[in-house]
Amino acid sequence: MMVLVDAMGGDNAPAAIVKGCVDALNTEDDFSVTLIGDRPSIEKVLVNEKYDKNRLFIRHTSEVITNDDSPTKAIRSKPDSSLVVGFNMLKEKEGDVFISAGSSGALLAASVMILKRIKGVERPAVGSVIPTKKGKLLLLDSGLNHTCRSSHYVQFGYLGAAYMKSAFGVENPRVGLINIGTEDEKGTDVVREANVMLRESRLNYVGNIESRDLFDGITDIAVTDGFTGNVVLKLIEGASSFFVGELKSLLFANLKSKMAALMLKKGLDGFKRKIDADVNGGAPILGIDGLVIKSHGSSKARTIKYVVLKAKVLAASSFIEDLKHDFLTVPKENPSENAEA
Amino acid sequence: MMVLVDAMGGDNAPAAIVKGCVDALNTEDDFSVTLIGDRPSIEKVLVNEKYDKNRLFIRHTSEVITNDDSPTKAIRSKPDSSLVVGFNMLKEKEGDVFISAGSSGALLAASVMILKRIKGVERPAVGSVIPTKKGKLLLLDSGLNHTCRSSHYVQFGYLGAAYMKSAFGVENPRVGLINIGTEDEKGTDVVREANVMLRESRLNYVGNIESRDLFDGITDIAVTDGFTGNVVLKLIEGASSFFVGELKSLLFANLKSKMAALMLKKGLDGFKRKIDADVNGGAPILGIDGLVIKSHGSSKARTIKYVVLKAKVLAASSFIEDLKHDFLTVPKENPSENAEA
Repeated sequence: MMVLVDAMGGDNAPAAIVKGCVDALNTEDDFSVTLIGDRPSIEKVLVNEKYDKNRLFIRHTSEVITNDDSPTKAIRSKPDSSLVVGFNMLKEKEGDVFISAGSSGALLAASVMILKRIKGVERPAVGSVIPTKKGKLLLLDSGLNHTCRSSHYVQFGYLGAAYMKSAFGVENPRVGLINIGTEDEKGTDVVREANVMLRESRLNYVGNIESRDLFDGITDIAVTDGFTGNVVLKLIEGASSFFVGELKSLLFANLKSKMAALMLKKGLDGFKRKIDADVNGGAPILGIDGLVIKSHGSSKARTIKYVVLKAKVLAASSFIEDLKHDFLTVPKENPSENAEA
Repeated sequence: MMVLVDAMGGDNAPAAIVKGCVDALNTEDDFSVTLIGDRPSIEKVLVNEKYDKNRLFIRHTSEVITNDDSPTKAIRSKPDSSLVVGFNMLKEKEGDVFISAGSSGALLAASVMILKRIKGVERPAVGSVIPTKKGKLLLLDSGLNHTCRSSHYVQFGYLGAAYMKSAFGVENPRVGLINIGTEDEKGTDVVREANVMLRESRLNYVGNIESRDLFDGITDIAVTDGFTGNVVLKLIEGASSFFVGELKSLLFANLKSKMAALMLKKGLDGFKRKIDADVNGGAPILGIDGLVIKSHGSSKARTIKYVVLKAKVLAASSFIEDLKHDFLTVPKENPSENAEA
């Protein structure tokens, strides 16, 4: 099992990326890692780390794609970038899964340009795991397809269901459709149509769900278009940061509140664990013929460690094969479209 | 100054509605209230209340529109409902502002059917006030127009700006456009076009804003389509309830945590005040020729009290006249559309 990691992507690269991989290697032993990026920079970090040298490899690259690059252009003009090399290694089966905390745009463009879609998939989607009262749910599409046709929502349901099964062991995951009311007549024409199509699908569809109920744990998967999904994802980040910020400032206001904070330590730690995004294993890019995981741009070593460990689980599963099988019979709006991909 | 109130709308009607109006009358004395609804039910609540009888009137009605009614049909088939009577009284200048916690759908339908749009307004919108780190912002459209053309976003900006000025005294309010990135090339075609049009407008436009930054207080107004706005609004409700629920259960977990909660009382009260939706004065329906405020379906007496007091401020301002003046020169995509309204 070989996990390919873009050592140069993200705000804290390469140090956090390299350290995260070392931590993952030291936690479980049934896999290897290839760090892709500038060898001297990577070695500079590794010199201070302890790890099994037989399980960590470096693939030197000379270029880096940044957030300022135009994604499509960068993929063509920077063939020796860590991102492009990573995708090509995955395609050539030199690794089982590829992880990057780099430019989302480039990552998504490369997914479609280099790896291609699974036969039957109209639109690949990004999934994001968000915390709920009872566990977690996968939100998709969380940013790739700004506008969607009704059949895309159904496809997102199948993509999400396969992921929740392979990554988290959720059997027959419940799928909800984000809408502005639970009644069938709510929403735009496209969303109303998607609701009907989802009900007719083989998915474990629970119906329309309102965003206020996302945290209640009534679904394992919430499907929506990439514009709404991205707004939802970032709003949850913003709301978390708002509430946690307010909580911190009230706990650290004075000596008395600091004492109270100490008394609450156990409960606060539990809450922190509940909303800890690091442990969720990153955002999978679903619907392409290969396992690619996007980690947050601000990923720390701890984030990367968990992404690597989750990626390995996914790579050991029959995830891609299951999807290929599923999509032989998943309804498409325009069956001929896939021929062009 | 006469405030018209639908006594029959909302989950807690008529008791909470009537009590809220009495509380408002007992707080400030420069206005009167007409309660519209079933006289016996209203009088049954009033019998236990103390208030200035010269400032509270009842207009008896025999019908009620519920959430189960089809909005447009209900307005036609229930002419003696509290909602329809309220709108007609407002139209006939028997009052200065109308408040209802009843069915959103019926309220919005009646706004357009009975009151008509202000000349130049393509689409009326609902505004909702949400808390930020530094105060509050108005989110619109928060549910009325599922899909929008680019000119609508600009119009929402003008509607929101007039409201923030009249209701909260914000001069030259900052307007942001909810998008999935701050860069000009982000978003759907319609949103990208709206960004350009907003920049060219007379509004104090700050550019695209991401949902994660909504709480930072960088804008006074956030414009978006009614689908996204409704998802944002309900997600904030859901996130608040999630965080407050988690906080409560950690504070009331055991004796030690309860002691800590007591020590934090002052800070917790401040936080509660910050996210207190009751004091924000309800959701105005903007762009129609009359002042209509929607209060939450689950409004309590306290909510209604603040909605009445804010409505009175708005009614005393030149809000509608300002809007009529603004919209003489606000750009429209299709100038002829307004002739049909």
